[in-house]
Amino acid sequence: MHQIAVLPGDGIGPEITEQAVRVLTALGLPLELQTQPVGGAAYAAHGHPLPEATLKLAQSARAILFGAVGDWKYDNLERHLRPEQAILGLRKALGLFANLRPAILYPQLANASTLKPEVVAGLDILIVRELTGDIYFGQPRGVRTLEDGPFKGERQGFDTMHYAESEIRRIAHIAFQAALKRNKKLCSVDKANVLETSQFWRDVMIAVSAEYPEVELSHMYVDNAAMQLVRAPKEFDVVVTGNLFGDILSDEAAMLTGSIGMLPSASLNAAGQGLYEPSHGSAPDIAGQNIANPLATILSAAMLLRYSLDEAAQADRIEAAVQSVLEQGLRTADIYEPGMLRVSTSEMGDAVLKAL
Amino acid sequence: MHQIAVLPGDGIGPEITEQAVRVLTALGLPLELQTQPVGGAAYAAHGHPLPEATLKLAQSARAILFGAVGDWKYDNLERHLRPEQAILGLRKALGLFANLRPAILYPQLANASTLKPEVVAGLDILIVRELTGDIYFGQPRGVRTLEDGPFKGERQGFDTMHYAESEIRRIAHIAFQAALKRNKKLCSVDKANVLETSQFWRDVMIAVSAEYPEVELSHMYVDNAAMQLVRAPKEFDVVVTGNLFGDILSDEAAMLTGSIGMLPSASLNAAGQGLYEPSHGSAPDIAGQNIANPLATILSAAMLLRYSLDEAAQADRIEAAVQSVLEQGLRTADIYEPGMLRVSTSEMGDAVLKAL
Ligand SMILES: CC(C)[C@H](C(=O)O)[C@@H](O)C(=O)O
Ligand SMILES: CC(C)[C@H](C(=O)O)[C@@H](O)C(=O)O
Repeated sequence: MHQIAVLPGDGIGPEITEQAVRVLTALGLPLELQTQPVGGAAYAAHGHPLPEATLKLAQSARAILFGAVGDWKYDNLERHLRPEQAILGLRKALGLFANLRPAILYPQLANASTLKPEVVAGLDILIVRELTGDIYFGQPRGVRTLEDGPFKGERQGFDTMHYAESEIRRIAHIAFQAALKRNKKLCSVDKANVLETSQFWRDVMIAVSAEYPEVELSHMYVDNAAMQLVRAPKEFDVVVTGNLFGDILSDEAAMLTGSIGMLPSASLNAAGQGLYEPSHGSAPDIAGQNIANPLATILSAAMLLRYSLDEAAQADRIEAAVQSVLEQGLRTADIYEPGMLRVSTSEMGDAVLKAL
Repeated sequence: MHQIAVLPGDGIGPEITEQAVRVLTALGLPLELQTQPVGGAAYAAHGHPLPEATLKLAQSARAILFGAVGDWKYDNLERHLRPEQAILGLRKALGLFANLRPAILYPQLANASTLKPEVVAGLDILIVRELTGDIYFGQPRGVRTLEDGPFKGERQGFDTMHYAESEIRRIAHIAFQAALKRNKKLCSVDKANVLETSQFWRDVMIAVSAEYPEVELSHMYVDNAAMQLVRAPKEFDVVVTGNLFGDILSDEAAMLTGSIGMLPSASLNAAGQGLYEPSHGSAPDIAGQNIANPLATILSAAMLLRYSLDEAAQADRIEAAVQSVLEQGLRTADIYEPGMLRVSTSEMGDAVLKAL
């Protein structure tokens, strides 16, 4: 029996997760699925975005199927009680250091992009983002009153960016191995012309690259990467970068496709445990209307099968089913265009189940 | 007499600066222009990217016309000798805290963008980037060996991000004032859901906004901003952000136009001194061929007149002349399309002079 924790979360989280659960259940695998609230829903029920019971379930499970967290209702809570602290807490507690964020433009959805078709048709990038280090968790951080210097007597907000050598090494290995299975091109993104952390990151990447002679390693500054993603995104194959730059670039890359409702993600630790979630957010404005796109979550379930359960054939099956519903012209509102068949969240789930 | 320091720099820097100098000289204003090397050229001549004489000239001038720095030749120098240290050194020494980066898509060049015309036609965003604070200059920074914690005994690269209250206040005022002269919409970009520096930044922005009731202030996380720039860039008017996020977003926004060869920038201090430079780089691959686009540098000279010399009418004249050469169909290689008239760097300069 594989234990799977289902954490639906807020906004559209519950309705999209429900469809992914239907798909997982239909495969006939020995899965045990258990659900707990997370994010704002958990705060509402238990006073904390990541309650003990939710964390325990997540830690004991082989994999986590995660919906989305966040709702305007919770915007005025103190930072440590806000919904997004749940996802940061899960990453840290489970050591989910490797975030895989594919940016794929399905041929059937080429029009959805704001970019010209010739620039994005066939886009298939994998962004590997380090997820437990960098300035996200670095200490010291806070607000202090300055005791000397040009701003003496003033308050100052501050944070610490850092990476230890083994943190860089382990994400480097994930990225090189991913590149080996793809087009063998890895671009490491940093800001080594300004940051010490980045120069150190680059040095370690170069050291690790000696173990992967088949992979062509290049380096790019983050400002240039933000430009090249707009100019010629198809020149990238695998991109590896730190937590902060990865946050920005993976979202930019996702939006190049114009169909972020289609993009899954995986966050893995060294033991093969993983958290799987759609790349999009909780969209509280459309929650409960049965119009959200469940495909990113269904494709996240496919990643779950591939990376945490070693069930590549089942993952392929789900991915083929998604391709097939797109072929049939089925579209939720976010990817709808004239001439296609507009369907609801649950109808999309039905269609994927049928195509399986 | 207004003193202007001309720092041509590396790569295409000298040839594009030359055209901007011709334009400035042709206006009949009481300008005294003096030239010094900077970047790799200065290292080659004097062993340092920002020699004493260059820094002195820059400090005593009212304004600096800057070409570009950087060349692969200098990539293997120690960090403190590399060309880009010159621009960081000038910003710090002169206190050039306010970077104004317009992203404008000229109607004549709408095709140059990789985005669909309806998404970018008429684009006119102003990015206000803080330029002397943040993680760029924050101390402590370096590489150290860890004495405890999970990575004990390992080396770690680290940097410090910080902003003092008055640093945020002064860039806020620049941004609100710019918004007042435009569409009165200001979007402040941060990562307040993760960073203490960002939460502090956001609090100060809100405090300053009380002085600008006519301006509508909004806040956006940097990952979302990177997405929205791709999805619907015309929804932005003025964007204000810190040094690191500004580096990334201003380059992304510039590339949306597809014609970064057209985009000027200004970096100002509290005394009205300013450094003016094209948004593009030194392009060493095409240096010395008389094919680079001088218009971004010529438009930087227009910004120089507007912001440091209070010569708005002369700035308008230059901007109108640039519009007129585009109208005439003149294009350097970077913005050439069939049916247009392909011209060299110096021919473009000739044409602007004629149109003045
Ligand atoms: C919600 C937020 C803390 C999070 C992050 O910045 O990592 C999100 O943007 C993401 O990318 O998963
Ligand atoms: C060259 C580099 C240090 C610089 C920066 O990061 O500020 C450049 O990218 C810029 O934006 O002017």
